[in-house]
Amino acid sequence: MLSEYLLAEMSRLGARDALPLHRQLYEALRRAMLDGKLGAGERLPSSRDLAQDLKLSRNTVVAAINQLSVEGYLASRVGSGTYVNDSVPRTTPGRGARQAGGQPATVQAGRLSARGKALSASFCATELEVQPFTPGIADFSAFPLTLWQRLQNKHWRLTYPDMLDYNDSGGYAPLRRAVADYLRVFRSVQLDADQVVITTGTQQSLELCARLLADHGDTVWVEDPAYWGAVKAFMATGLSLHPVPVDEEGINPRSADNAKPPRLVYVTPSHQYPTGAVMSLPRRHQLLATARAHDAWVLEDDYDSEYRFSGPPISCLEGLDTDGRVLYMGTFSKVLYPGLKIGYLVVPRPLVAAFKQAHYDLNRPGQMPVQAALAEFIEMGHFASALRRARLNYGERRQCLLEALRPVLRDTQEGPYISGAEQGLHLCLRLPQSVDDRALAQRIATQHGLTVRPLSAYCLARKDLRGLVIGYGYAPLAEIKRCGPLVAAAVRQALGGAAA
Amino acid sequence: MLSEYLLAEMSRLGARDALPLHRQLYEALRRAMLDGKLGAGERLPSSRDLAQDLKLSRNTVVAAINQLSVEGYLASRVGSGTYVNDSVPRTTPGRGARQAGGQPATVQAGRLSARGKALSASFCATELEVQPFTPGIADFSAFPLTLWQRLQNKHWRLTYPDMLDYNDSGGYAPLRRAVADYLRVFRSVQLDADQVVITTGTQQSLELCARLLADHGDTVWVEDPAYWGAVKAFMATGLSLHPVPVDEEGINPRSADNAKPPRLVYVTPSHQYPTGAVMSLPRRHQLLATARAHDAWVLEDDYDSEYRFSGPPISCLEGLDTDGRVLYMGTFSKVLYPGLKIGYLVVPRPLVAAFKQAHYDLNRPGQMPVQAALAEFIEMGHFASALRRARLNYGERRQCLLEALRPVLRDTQEGPYISGAEQGLHLCLRLPQSVDDRALAQRIATQHGLTVRPLSAYCLARKDLRGLVIGYGYAPLAEIKRCGPLVAAAVRQALGGAAA
Repeated sequence: MLSEYLLAEMSRLGARDALPLHRQLYEALRRAMLDGKLGAGERLPSSRDLAQDLKLSRNTVVAAINQLSVEGYLASRVGSGTYVNDSVPRTTPGRGARQAGGQPATVQAGRLSARGKALSASFCATELEVQPFTPGIADFSAFPLTLWQRLQNKHWRLTYPDMLDYNDSGGYAPLRRAVADYLRVFRSVQLDADQVVITTGTQQSLELCARLLADHGDTVWVEDPAYWGAVKAFMATGLSLHPVPVDEEGINPRSADNAKPPRLVYVTPSHQYPTGAVMSLPRRHQLLATARAHDAWVLEDDYDSEYRFSGPPISCLEGLDTDGRVLYMGTFSKVLYPGLKIGYLVVPRPLVAAFKQAHYDLNRPGQMPVQAALAEFIEMGHFASALRRARLNYGERRQCLLEALRPVLRDTQEGPYISGAEQGLHLCLRLPQSVDDRALAQRIATQHGLTVRPLSAYCLARKDLRGLVIGYGYAPLAEIKRCGPLVAAAVRQALGGAAA
Repeated sequence: MLSEYLLAEMSRLGARDALPLHRQLYEALRRAMLDGKLGAGERLPSSRDLAQDLKLSRNTVVAAINQLSVEGYLASRVGSGTYVNDSVPRTTPGRGARQAGGQPATVQAGRLSARGKALSASFCATELEVQPFTPGIADFSAFPLTLWQRLQNKHWRLTYPDMLDYNDSGGYAPLRRAVADYLRVFRSVQLDADQVVITTGTQQSLELCARLLADHGDTVWVEDPAYWGAVKAFMATGLSLHPVPVDEEGINPRSADNAKPPRLVYVTPSHQYPTGAVMSLPRRHQLLATARAHDAWVLEDDYDSEYRFSGPPISCLEGLDTDGRVLYMGTFSKVLYPGLKIGYLVVPRPLVAAFKQAHYDLNRPGQMPVQAALAEFIEMGHFASALRRARLNYGERRQCLLEALRPVLRDTQEGPYISGAEQGLHLCLRLPQSVDDRALAQRIATQHGLTVRPLSAYCLARKDLRGLVIGYGYAPLAEIKRCGPLVAAAVRQALGGAAA
């Protein structure tokens, strides 16, 4: 009866997983013990008998029994054979349920911690479907893949010894130099290469800042409406979020906000996400003065700074900082290729050593061959020319989307008007408060299969904003020409309904 | 005088950064305003005059002025020229100091948060120098680089559309299947591919677990001595660490430990880090029962499970778990190539959706081409054969190191004896309590340039352990032959000193 059970189990296992025979037998015997077919203290048939019954070689049987003995399931008594160990547990009722693919009976399903529940709650920004107007997605079809592969192959070969050298955890030195040169020239960031820490992107940069510069329960000022990725990073690091409203000049702290003094202030001055507001110079100075008054750190996410369509690029907040309280961050994922997973964080000199140490310990940075390939890619000028090409390309798409939306724009304070089209890869079509933007976005998704985002879904405390966040980075021109008018028509319909 | 200042600044900038002329002028003008050479409200010379004075084309001057106007530094008044905006701040004293490369005067240097100070403190395990005996480093010289490059190139071409599809944030589906097949067959983990979450490695896996399953201030039981990477991950996520001693059968909770009921229990049962103890079967059952009694989650770091030298591999804790409270994790960094940065986490079914969602939001997983290449690498059987080759290779090195150390071993409880040599890529030479293992490790580093780790440096609460943690994964056989006796001699000398 035991041998029948074992044969049945083995054939089931063999069919499913193509296990070697000794491993099939091992699993079958283990199961027999857990299921109680072989009870504690029971004597196992001799290896010779088992081999005969199961039509296996004796070596196979011995291999299985040896492993079970090593693991403590079986115990040998000299001269009297092999016994099931007393400590082998019987299967609890939960086990059967689990094997049948159901939920274990003895554990409460999905027993998350309180923060776990908050962190795994789904927000609008994560229902990411790649469609013509999905915000936050760029077009990577022009990425010079062959060149990239050549560089990457070369550095996979070359960097072997460096790769093992985790010591300098700011990242691959030539990449840090290349990033520093780029930021100094194009973004007026004032820095040495040593201040650059290579990360896997903005999420990692934000968490590092939150952990090293703020304690659990400290207040962080965030823009309202906000970039959800940042909100989650601050939630995950135990900070207390204080939303500060954004207007057309960027974040605009009210005097009441000073009652919640910040330890950190997080801003997206180049192209506020999602309204697209560019922070004005007076506002920049005001923000730095406020941060100074509170002795707070400023986290500058220079998101989308690469694509400015009207006028020359605007210098970063870091460049105006007179006392080293701005931490500046960016990413290559939107500019080159999302699979790269490389971003950078510029930290004030007094913090460099602490950031490098903690980054190594917490994040075990790596990917040296990719970092090396990217360094050479930038040094050879390919990054600059990719940017130039992309700017022309996205500029056309932006123009095309603007034209499609023009018919619905009205010359009122309330909207519809467009914000944030000077820069970046998305714009925001602002709507009157009477429009239900969530319902409108839902209707556009259902009727046309297009993903646009309701502006109100990004709001934290405020209730006054309505609009659609529309990306133009991903879709080819022809798609924008085809789909733009569909969105415009849906908006017109919603406006009619709202007016009625 | 202004033009002289500008020319001097421009030549300085041009020499350093090879900026285009209009950008040099832009920076020079900006600096002039910040330094007060151009005061608020002051009128700028006309673009024609500036061009003449500076010997620049008028277009260059206009480009610089335009950018400064866009950024709000300058304001044009119709018919009366361009003025410095009132809101441009003067440079504070701190600025000068900063430009000179010193610390800003107005910010307290290195003002980290309390947790930031703890997280950036340096521990023994991070002074990583790659030398023959550095623990935790494997030998990747046998990695089939050409094959890998072929696969990676192929998937960089192929996966372009998938790469944009971040929806299924558990990772690249074929890789999750390949990992599930591997774990089912070789590690007796019971799972479906859907339970696999691809991470960047154990640090990320641990943080995800800590955040989703525990709240700030919750207790986590950790082994004492402990793997520092895990300790840092729990510190970073705000957990309260409770050290539980490890003996030769693994973690051994005392009844007093129950006074600090855990929400999480973190263990390395296959090869305890750093003692190398393999958790016995009775201890495994006991641990699961304890976890059940406290309704705690068990985090099983199946670190180094791939290399077992005596006897067949031991099944994992997850395979004994009857009610789905074990989360199982591993990494490919030690087996294939550290630059890969790919690990995996197996979560119980009721938690899958929450983990995938939070992983996407917090970590923005990516690297699809690398994940795809790895999936094919495993499916084609290259992973299994790389493991086989490596096991033979490391087995020889281990033997060689054991032989070099044999002369110093004594047959006493106190040591010197060796623990943890059955498995993994390091062993632990246990020493009598009278030996100062930190001083010994320091002496070995100074005299021979070899990095071995003092066991006491990994201890959290206990004071009774002394020893040396010695890796044999990295060095070729000849190096181990040469350096092993040097370590043995230093140990013998220390024992002599301790006995005297």
